Amino acid sequence: MKIIDGGVTAAKGFKAAGLHAGLKKVKRDMAMILSETDAVTAATFTTNKVKAAPVIWDQKIAEAGKARAVVVNSGNANACTGSQGLIDAEKTAEKAAALIGTDKSNIYVSSTGVIGVKLDMDKILKGIEMLYPELSERGGKSAAEAICTTDTFTKECAVTIEVSGRTVTIGGMAKGSGMIHPNMATMLSFITTDASVSLETLRKLLGETVEDTFNMISVDGDTSTNDTCIVMANGLAGNAEITESSPDYDAFREAFSYVLGELAKLITRDGEGAGRFIEMKVMNAPSKHDAKLLARAVISSSLVKAAFFGADANWGRILCAMGYSGASFEPSLVDLSFSSSKGEIAVVKNGEPLPFSEEKAKEILLEKEIYVVADCHQGNAEAVAWGCDLTYDYVRINGDYRS
Amino acid sequence: MKIIDGGVTAAKGFKAAGLHAGLKKVKRDMAMILSETDAVTAATFTTNKVKAAPVIWDQKIAEAGKARAVVVNSGNANACTGSQGLIDAEKTAEKAAALIGTDKSNIYVSSTGVIGVKLDMDKILKGIEMLYPELSERGGKSAAEAICTTDTFTKECAVTIEVSGRTVTIGGMAKGSGMIHPNMATMLSFITTDASVSLETLRKLLGETVEDTFNMISVDGDTSTNDTCIVMANGLAGNAEITESSPDYDAFREAFSYVLGELAKLITRDGEGAGRFIEMKVMNAPSKHDAKLLARAVISSSLVKAAFFGADANWGRILCAMGYSGASFEPSLVDLSFSSSKGEIAVVKNGEPLPFSEEKAKEILLEKEIYVVADCHQGNAEAVAWGCDLTYDYVRINGDYRS
Repeated sequence: MKIIDGGVTAAKGFKAAGLHAGLKKVKRDMAMILSETDAVTAATFTTNKVKAAPVIWDQKIAEAGKARAVVVNSGNANACTGSQGLIDAEKTAEKAAALIGTDKSNIYVSSTGVIGVKLDMDKILKGIEMLYPELSERGGKSAAEAICTTDTFTKECAVTIEVSGRTVTIGGMAKGSGMIHPNMATMLSFITTDASVSLETLRKLLGETVEDTFNMISVDGDTSTNDTCIVMANGLAGNAEITESSPDYDAFREAFSYVLGELAKLITRDGEGAGRFIEMKVMNAPSKHDAKLLARAVISSSLVKAAFFGADANWGRILCAMGYSGASFEPSLVDLSFSSSKGEIAVVKNGEPLPFSEEKAKEILLEKEIYVVADCHQGNAEAVAWGCDLTYDYVRINGDYRS
Repeated sequence: MKIIDGGVTAAKGFKAAGLHAGLKKVKRDMAMILSETDAVTAATFTTNKVKAAPVIWDQKIAEAGKARAVVVNSGNANACTGSQGLIDAEKTAEKAAALIGTDKSNIYVSSTGVIGVKLDMDKILKGIEMLYPELSERGGKSAAEAICTTDTFTKECAVTIEVSGRTVTIGGMAKGSGMIHPNMATMLSFITTDASVSLETLRKLLGETVEDTFNMISVDGDTSTNDTCIVMANGLAGNAEITESSPDYDAFREAFSYVLGELAKLITRDGEGAGRFIEMKVMNAPSKHDAKLLARAVISSSLVKAAFFGADANWGRILCAMGYSGASFEPSLVDLSFSSSKGEIAVVKNGEPLPFSEEKAKEILLEKEIYVVADCHQGNAEAVAWGCDLTYDYVRINGDYRS
């Protein structure tokens, strides 16, 4: 596997563009991704009962398993917009389909931004008209910019691997920031690949990989109405179709996981107001399910997050969060340690405090990337979750997001 | 029912005291409640797997159903302190029992404060020696002060009712502030009554009432290791013993619910850093279970809480939180409104936005007490939950709690 520059246009036969259509005041607010040919597609969506109109539209496309393009807007989530919202999502797909020369049933639509405001369809339709001629193989970056809301940087990742003698590329982009919590937590992410992959394999792979990547991050515990992760595989790399029994399946899975994992981590690094990136690893848990519950509870705890904001080695809050996680485990067997580029410090052994230097702990925790390891000593399951600290800026950003 | 001044010493035959034993720098940090005679007792505790030592001690006493006194310290939670923590809890009970002239198995012990630091037993034992002679029928207030941590005011409530021709008093005190979340969310609360109540009835009543009061509040989503609600009924009012079939049962239940409900609401009013008190009422939900899930999800959402901090009528976040609550409901039937002493404003009808005056909404939401009503129009179940906003101060307080 080779890590390369780029995002959704890294793979063969994908074009993209991003531009300002007027939904936001100044910044880019519409993006489009187009595959040269029909692509095999799979997608996962929010588990929220309140699903945005584009999610409802996209579910049908993912079910059919075939797509040509995605149209994305930021600045307006098209959620809680009733039947008009559904009509608007469909009209968006229709407009793009007409320009591309395909059916609207091949066009995904994604929205992110404020809830409960109807889409300005004049701007959306005009935006698509402007986007279409701008589509280019170098357009990934501008598309990645256009899907952002309160994100402070774009999130892209791409890799290549060899599959049956052909170079296969997998690339992706994502946006996150707020309303990010482990249940299809991605907000929006789009993965493109020129690999030839069977629909069944792509679906299964996406489901499994999202569980260990996007569903293991949290910024604020709020599962959005719009969470979407779409993957499109157009097969233009010319490799022999990948299925679960292919000799190259494991390599492809590894590369695919890498791209989704990196995008997930980029979302937490750019969590609203985040100052620190937190990785929580749970080792030797009784089961994978328990390990995940434990890791997710810790990175979701407001008290743990506030302690990291203060660079405070308040490990009691970590054990407390593990305790209410719902996981089956014995607290009196747990060891805990913190580490960063400044070193490592063990703080708990067998569920009880170890003496440690507060000065050393502070030095470690003042870094921007903090790694916490909980060794449960009661099995061999492992899980990793990613989060960020809770800061004044999170409160400021969300105290008046709409204005 | 008559609301009266006072707390744990309002009922006949209860004395209390609070003083500074040196666990905290300056403030009162130890309290004691004593019943003149053995009291029938029931208690509920944290569901956290990581249970503080005093919780483990108290569970045995609640099981036996008889108690004389409670010793409480603030400043140190005696949690994650291993076998030494259990020994210390027992020694604390032993010391108080010796002074009172009863068995240690009649003494509850409660702790709240920092996790993972062993109790300073010299101070605790000295504290009990100082407390015992200070016990008085006017000591409720000083006890309520001594159990506080980051609380900014004491939380007391008392009422009287007539039961079989006798005046029965129910009083209580609580402390809350942080690590407060619906699962025996009270941190510490102590209820005393001079009513004669059967053990079975007291247990059932406590369980049911906690579900609708303390378990319906949230400050920060973190379920503490020390959550405790203890009720002691010493029977000195001389009423005929209350059981579920007593004619006075409903009146007693109403009074009991009132005291627990008021204490629960006081905890959210004094949530760490809280600037606004939020009441979330869900009406006409498919079931009580769904109504509770919906109400609790809303008051627990960081995004909803931050919006209230900003006095922002961001109702989309409320529908979003209802959506991921796990409750069974149809979002497209929901109506939403906000109100405060400045008036009421409807913002959603049938799951879709209503036009409303942002100016009027701001005026309503700038008040200190905000009431949100969600009418589901799909059943007749109801639930109310209480919370507070998420503020800079919450982050400040928890960014470096230990220093």
